Amino acid sequence: MAEVRNKQVVLKDYVSGFPKESDMHIIEGTVTLKLPEASSEVLLIKNLYLSCDPYMRILMTEGASSYTPGSPLTGYGVGRVLESGHLDYKKGDLVWGITKWEEYSLVSSDQTLFKIQHTDVPLSYYTGILGMPGMTAYVGFFELCSPKKGEKVFVSAASGAVGQLVGQFAKLAGCYVVGSAGSKEKVDLLKNKLGFDEAFNYKEESDLNAALKRCFPEGIDIYFENVGGKTLDAVLLNMRLHGRISVCGMISQYNLTQPEGVTNLANMIFKRIRMQGFIVSDSYNLYPKFLEFLLPHIREGKVMYVEDIAEGLENGPAALVGLYSGRNFGKQVLVVSRE
Amino acid sequence: MAEVRNKQVVLKDYVSGFPKESDMHIIEGTVTLKLPEASSEVLLIKNLYLSCDPYMRILMTEGASSYTPGSPLTGYGVGRVLESGHLDYKKGDLVWGITKWEEYSLVSSDQTLFKIQHTDVPLSYYTGILGMPGMTAYVGFFELCSPKKGEKVFVSAASGAVGQLVGQFAKLAGCYVVGSAGSKEKVDLLKNKLGFDEAFNYKEESDLNAALKRCFPEGIDIYFENVGGKTLDAVLLNMRLHGRISVCGMISQYNLTQPEGVTNLANMIFKRIRMQGFIVSDSYNLYPKFLEFLLPHIREGKVMYVEDIAEGLENGPAALVGLYSGRNFGKQVLVVSRE
Repeated sequence: MAEVRNKQVVLKDYVSGFPKESDMHIIEGTVTLKLPEASSEVLLIKNLYLSCDPYMRILMTEGASSYTPGSPLTGYGVGRVLESGHLDYKKGDLVWGITKWEEYSLVSSDQTLFKIQHTDVPLSYYTGILGMPGMTAYVGFFELCSPKKGEKVFVSAASGAVGQLVGQFAKLAGCYVVGSAGSKEKVDLLKNKLGFDEAFNYKEESDLNAALKRCFPEGIDIYFENVGGKTLDAVLLNMRLHGRISVCGMISQYNLTQPEGVTNLANMIFKRIRMQGFIVSDSYNLYPKFLEFLLPHIREGKVMYVEDIAEGLENGPAALVGLYSGRNFGKQVLVVSRE
Repeated sequence: MAEVRNKQVVLKDYVSGFPKESDMHIIEGTVTLKLPEASSEVLLIKNLYLSCDPYMRILMTEGASSYTPGSPLTGYGVGRVLESGHLDYKKGDLVWGITKWEEYSLVSSDQTLFKIQHTDVPLSYYTGILGMPGMTAYVGFFELCSPKKGEKVFVSAASGAVGQLVGQFAKLAGCYVVGSAGSKEKVDLLKNKLGFDEAFNYKEESDLNAALKRCFPEGIDIYFENVGGKTLDAVLLNMRLHGRISVCGMISQYNLTQPEGVTNLANMIFKRIRMQGFIVSDSYNLYPKFLEFLLPHIREGKVMYVEDIAEGLENGPAALVGLYSGRNFGKQVLVVSRE
């Protein structure tokens, strides 16, 4: 029975403050390429692409559902089935869903897992535009914000895995869309490649309220929230009547031991604002509808997706940590193996 | 043509910080008891009861829709029609809606105004349980929070004009309900008279988070927000999955030049919380449905209403200012005239 090397990215200990590469280490173990008997782990998978996602920082803080120090990180990824003990999957299938940061993983049947049916697009897309982040943009924008043609949309972290799609979806819906990002290059990407009507570098704006007033003289109808803190506070001052805020993430707050206070919530009353927090996995029943909507747009080149590809598990910690300083340019993907 | 005294409560100047009685003064003018010709003011009303409402503080701050210094305050009230130039009203009708803090008011037809059809209940009720605050409790609780039997409900400012009704509505809906208030007497009222399952004096709790954990070991499904600031922050830590927050008011923040920061908003994501700000006047189309629901409960004694009655316009400033220190015990009403 084949025993092979299984490199892993392991969390050393719970993290407080900004995560560092040294909070993780790479260990090399071995794995037997065979399903254990009488186990809930019914698939043996070879991991191909792993997804670096902002929420992973939250699981590094000690808490009820956090990562286990000494064990590999878990997260979204794309893999190939090497052995299956489940009727829905067979050897050779490609899948995306929750896996571990290692070369080979045993996956149990109660985890999020989708069989990949369309391989005329890059496989890595199933960590991004066709995976969890894509669904997040779709559900958070279309389902929760019910955009109408002509409405004014603001997206923070707009060049990220989710934000770049929200902006493009907003254009498809006939909205005016502005994004904020953290570098000149990202702003250029938004304006010149991704079709945003306007974009600004939040690091260069001394007054976020003024920046928003400049971009939205008539105010914001829909805010897709990825960052939290000061940005949300400035947005609340600029929302229009009956505005909607989809609360997808608050990456600016995850590394703070004392989060920034949001002081302008009373605007929710006067402006009748609805804020809705969500976790996309609640809406995975919409995945077929989502694919039907998005695949044609991708094939026709009407929706683009920018990926930042890191090579090899040993570069995983740096890729993941880079999310929190905005080092990534587009969706951060980690290649484990190109087979 | 009769010219009579018209006492008024006038705002001296815009207010910052906590309002004081001395921010208003009482002036005595005269008024001719006749409708002006060719005017949009189509009703001459004798004011009977005026409503002291927390939102009025917001209109005292300089801003686009604030009160005009030198002019009488505007607000909700109950009055009798002395002259009508509008087909829907005739002399002698009782009405409730937006009026001015004075003895006699000219009211224009584009203001909120309802004819009072049921006079077997106290007339003052149309400033409270059967007026704007009652509708606020009804819309904010039933329409926005969709309560289900057995759900856990928290109400702040629970003995106030709106809160006392939210608690009683929650019991009618089969919920478990806890209220917070600012004195032992108010807590006793909630527990012993108004049917709340539990109540606490927030001024006596050094740790609001701990107080909520004690009252809601399984967490909060619905929070009816009247106060904002620290209370909201503690509530966010104690919400359950798919919790709903109806944002009706944030009275704790209205007098602060720098509002308290809310730091726990990221819980909205993990817990899929929906927060909805609202202004009840958007939902006045539901008023007939509301009356149909509530009048029988009042007549059968199944819903109570506690009022704090101040007598005479000259006591108006003190009554209004008292709201912000919680001096009122129940709905604060100001009697202008008992006819």
